[in-house]
Amino acid sequence: MRKIIVQKFGGTSVADTDKIKNVADVVLREKQNGNDVVVVVSAMGHTTDHLVKMAKALSPNPSSREMDMLLSTGEGVSIALLAMAIQAKGYDAVSFNAMQVGIMTENIHSKARIINIKTEKLRKNLEEGKVIVVAGFQGVTEDGEITTLGRGGSDTSAVALAAALNAERCDIYTDVEGVYTTDPRIVPRASRLDIVSYEEMLELAHAGANVLHPRSVETAKQFNVPLRVRSSFKLDDMGTLIVGVDKMELHRPVAGVAADLTQARIVVCDVPDTPGVAARVFTNLANENISVDMIIQSYARKASNTNDIAFTIDKNDLPKTLAVLETLRQEINAGDIKVDDDTAKVSIIGAGMIDRPGIASTMFETLAKLNINIRMISTSEIKISCLVDKIDAQKALKALHTVFDLECDVVADVKGDLPDV
Amino acid sequence: MRKIIVQKFGGTSVADTDKIKNVADVVLREKQNGNDVVVVVSAMGHTTDHLVKMAKALSPNPSSREMDMLLSTGEGVSIALLAMAIQAKGYDAVSFNAMQVGIMTENIHSKARIINIKTEKLRKNLEEGKVIVVAGFQGVTEDGEITTLGRGGSDTSAVALAAALNAERCDIYTDVEGVYTTDPRIVPRASRLDIVSYEEMLELAHAGANVLHPRSVETAKQFNVPLRVRSSFKLDDMGTLIVGVDKMELHRPVAGVAADLTQARIVVCDVPDTPGVAARVFTNLANENISVDMIIQSYARKASNTNDIAFTIDKNDLPKTLAVLETLRQEINAGDIKVDDDTAKVSIIGAGMIDRPGIASTMFETLAKLNINIRMISTSEIKISCLVDKIDAQKALKALHTVFDLECDVVADVKGDLPDV
Repeated sequence: MRKIIVQKFGGTSVADTDKIKNVADVVLREKQNGNDVVVVVSAMGHTTDHLVKMAKALSPNPSSREMDMLLSTGEGVSIALLAMAIQAKGYDAVSFNAMQVGIMTENIHSKARIINIKTEKLRKNLEEGKVIVVAGFQGVTEDGEITTLGRGGSDTSAVALAAALNAERCDIYTDVEGVYTTDPRIVPRASRLDIVSYEEMLELAHAGANVLHPRSVETAKQFNVPLRVRSSFKLDDMGTLIVGVDKMELHRPVAGVAADLTQARIVVCDVPDTPGVAARVFTNLANENISVDMIIQSYARKASNTNDIAFTIDKNDLPKTLAVLETLRQEINAGDIKVDDDTAKVSIIGAGMIDRPGIASTMFETLAKLNINIRMISTSEIKISCLVDKIDAQKALKALHTVFDLECDVVADVKGDLPDV
Repeated sequence: MRKIIVQKFGGTSVADTDKIKNVADVVLREKQNGNDVVVVVSAMGHTTDHLVKMAKALSPNPSSREMDMLLSTGEGVSIALLAMAIQAKGYDAVSFNAMQVGIMTENIHSKARIINIKTEKLRKNLEEGKVIVVAGFQGVTEDGEITTLGRGGSDTSAVALAAALNAERCDIYTDVEGVYTTDPRIVPRASRLDIVSYEEMLELAHAGANVLHPRSVETAKQFNVPLRVRSSFKLDDMGTLIVGVDKMELHRPVAGVAADLTQARIVVCDVPDTPGVAARVFTNLANENISVDMIIQSYARKASNTNDIAFTIDKNDLPKTLAVLETLRQEINAGDIKVDDDTAKVSIIGAGMIDRPGIASTMFETLAKLNINIRMISTSEIKISCLVDKIDAQKALKALHTVFDLECDVVADVKGDLPDV
């Protein structure tokens, strides 16, 4: 049986007709390798921005149902054009939108999750030798309502299709050459990773290296779909393979380092040290859909019988968080609420660190030698994070990258928009 | 029970967000009259041209299936934006594409005919008080393939929806104020008709006054849907009502005059006068899908036992026609084939002329007085057409417009693109 490869191309890869022709070549290269190919594409370049601008001109707060109707047209254009480009090169191709395939989602607009993908039509068309071009980012509900999948949606579409079709691999073509040990704009000698585990990739993504949206990596992990992040301009370069940790030979304790500038630190001072109070703080935040990352509770001060609770949140949630805390502060009779948003979370990530106890101390020593204050620490099985002052973030990142031996011999050739650190 | 009004707005009416806001006002005016409203819209302004241009950049001959996928996205944008604009004015609105409604068509791309329209979803949403915005021009097959309806498709969508919903009326909003007795750019004192029959409208349309595509008028006639052509800028003006001839009091023999410059005249000389030869000419043309309009066969010349066959075709079909005729000429041993494409078909149209025998002679006399040669004549129950030299077309049109008393007192205020005559 022929193998199925799912390929995904983002908006910059299909930004104009010349780029679409290039994508057709990439697709046909895989087809010529003897594989069946399903291609997922996003809307062309700035289409989405243009559509959003028109919507905003008509309504300050357009309904999410109609926004989904509107935005889903973007992929409608790119799938048809790519199918035409493939046909023009002498191959059979057919485009389908999410409604035609049956990419079934929850009935939630603007951030629906895929429930199920119907594969009959896809399999029938693959058997007929066709290249199939599918609209990313969109789905449809049982009632025929059009939904969209939110940020990183096309990556998720591609991975979900690969899972549904039991594909050999899902190749995410992008304008970077793969996943790096850290942001090459900050550390020019960052190394491109040949292989990384889903878990490491998730931590790298959450820590700010947003080559892939975490949701797509989670889906790949859930269905064990091998993912490859690779450049649509350097076709002989296989990029970075992302697989289960069981498929990796771990010889490096740390896979990468990352800095995340999106978090703010909150300290609620003088919280009465009675059972259930801390739980109440985090329950109230959770009720407002505010994610809390690092948490530290100080030892209780005997004299006042109070303690301080410090935690980090996404800066975008700051107004909501302060509203929740102000109400709570009065109810529980706590002290001041302090906010520090000049912080950076610096993390080292590696599935191999679990068996090597010296990693954490190496990290702390490295920062100490540079006189960098560590304000908070959190650890997981594959990650150690330190909250530091924003001004120290770059220095910390560079030193950690060196000390964990992640440098390569050549300066990375970086294109495109990497995350702002 | 509340009445249902179907409204249709073309591409120029929704060309930008300001114009879409204006359309929302027009829609809500009808809603505020206490009617249920279903709105059909075309793609915004030059969207279709832009999409076609991209397709041509990718393929010299893109597949019609993918062209339909591509072009149908245009209405996807305008329906969502119009629904948002209506919502922003405080009313409930919902947009549906053809697949969501169930506008079922034949499985023919780029010129499908509507077979059936599902009304459950529409009726349910109307009962909930919503304004429904439906994508024109597009349909869907039983297999979920997206089709388009060809030229004038959105008008046809609107009329078919009005028929399916048993609507009170279908209002076609456009950038002209209605149907005129003739092209006001040629005859400034052309009158706007308050009422015209389907049959007259069809002849006016076929004769070159393409305010409405004939197909939409045919559909309206078939299902007896009252149609109104009116301006989206002059809302108190009721435009032209198009109804069955049985609903009109006929007091004018001639409703309008028109000139059609799209036809070429062909003469096949010295055709052997044997039975079946003429039939063979027209059968071969029909096999190539070439429509023949006027036909004249001369009396047979006794000496040679041959005659001449003259007929008119659409100029676009000229290359195909000549190919067919050249093959046939050798088979049947006919003489030269002459082509004259400097011709104009001037027609007078009126459902009232059937009972008034003097109309034809008045037409011929009027042209004779101006020394205009009549090369061919054809007549139907509601139309008399004369083929004249192109150079005489304007002169003929003006004289006929005057002699049949179609002038009005004021010079027409004409906007937009009327047909090129």
